[in-house]
Amino acid sequence: MFITFEGIEGTGKSTQITLLKAHLETLGRSVLVTCEPGGSRIGRELRRVLLSLENSDLCARAELFLYLADRAQHVAQVVRPALQAGQVVLCDRFADSTVAYQAFGRGLDADLLHSLNELAVAGTWPDLTILLDIDPRTGLERAMARNAAEGKTVAEGRFEAESLAFHQRVREGYAAWAARFPQRIRLVEAKGTPEDIALHIRELVEARLNV
Amino acid sequence: MFITFEGIEGTGKSTQITLLKAHLETLGRSVLVTCEPGGSRIGRELRRVLLSLENSDLCARAELFLYLADRAQHVAQVVRPALQAGQVVLCDRFADSTVAYQAFGRGLDADLLHSLNELAVAGTWPDLTILLDIDPRTGLERAMARNAAEGKTVAEGRFEAESLAFHQRVREGYAAWAARFPQRIRLVEAKGTPEDIALHIRELVEARLNV
Repeated sequence: MFITFEGIEGTGKSTQITLLKAHLETLGRSVLVTCEPGGSRIGRELRRVLLSLENSDLCARAELFLYLADRAQHVAQVVRPALQAGQVVLCDRFADSTVAYQAFGRGLDADLLHSLNELAVAGTWPDLTILLDIDPRTGLERAMARNAAEGKTVAEGRFEAESLAFHQRVREGYAAWAARFPQRIRLVEAKGTPEDIALHIRELVEARLNV
Repeated sequence: MFITFEGIEGTGKSTQITLLKAHLETLGRSVLVTCEPGGSRIGRELRRVLLSLENSDLCARAELFLYLADRAQHVAQVVRPALQAGQVVLCDRFADSTVAYQAFGRGLDADLLHSLNELAVAGTWPDLTILLDIDPRTGLERAMARNAAEGKTVAEGRFEAESLAFHQRVREGYAAWAARFPQRIRLVEAKGTPEDIALHIRELVEARLNV
């Protein structure tokens, strides 16, 4: 089973992945946690290029192709082998991030990006995508507090440095995209305690496991 | 005017670019010489990833997207600004390399790759492409002699390490692709002295300049 987590910065994706992993392990499942960009060895080199603030001159099309390169390598070298070995794979961001950020955020064509994702994932689509939804103002405050706690500059990373309007477009894009794939993408409000949200996610996962 | 040079390893592309640059400068033109992969600052980071023998596990689709990322950034940051400033741009490998190596060499779909190139170049196609043609056995011997002279290992680079059959497919692919774009791509036999070949190229360029 392949489960991806999506949402803007500060929705608590990594916290929820940690909680779901622990839960699935108590059920006896072997779980691989991974992420994009940077889920493969070569992908970690690409992640550095993609997320460095020094590369603010990276053009939108080059950025798009770098994410797709990272994805193709990640699927081929990490995700598909783990699924074939019977593991549950939990991935922090995947193909829907490209549509949300590069299409809805930066204005590229969503259908074209979906075709490019088809080429990158080569058939390995998630069984379930958890879309964590939050107001961008709250999300960015959380992301910046996290960065500060980790000793980074407040706006570390090219995406945190984008405007609130950009993150608002990304959030709305995610919701519109989720409506197009209602069976795969499930929107979860990132409100309440992490444990409350984890319980909601657990129900969605167990419903899917029992299908 | 935007002129690209294509062909398998060891056809003498860089020698011919040097000779053409010198000739165009005697005619009073300002010339920018550039290359792919690695023609932009960010592209040089990608070139390292693409050409390192350590990355022999780079999957075909990831490789494709990395070349496209490099191209999009190169066109946006280097090629298009130089053309707009009135320079002649001479580029060692460009979009046709992707078709020749990734489609004809590795088996991806040539028409799909052409569409992806359209996205990467965003309208900036070469005015003229010089395809230098040579028997792969001769070309690889030259490339390996050059590597040895530069103190590299004989088969440095992921492409020199490919089989002769691979290079034969690439050569035939180039010729087939040139036949599809006969106005833009001109095949030049890489036989005779560098000066003989340079004269042939000069005639093609001047015919195009006078159009």
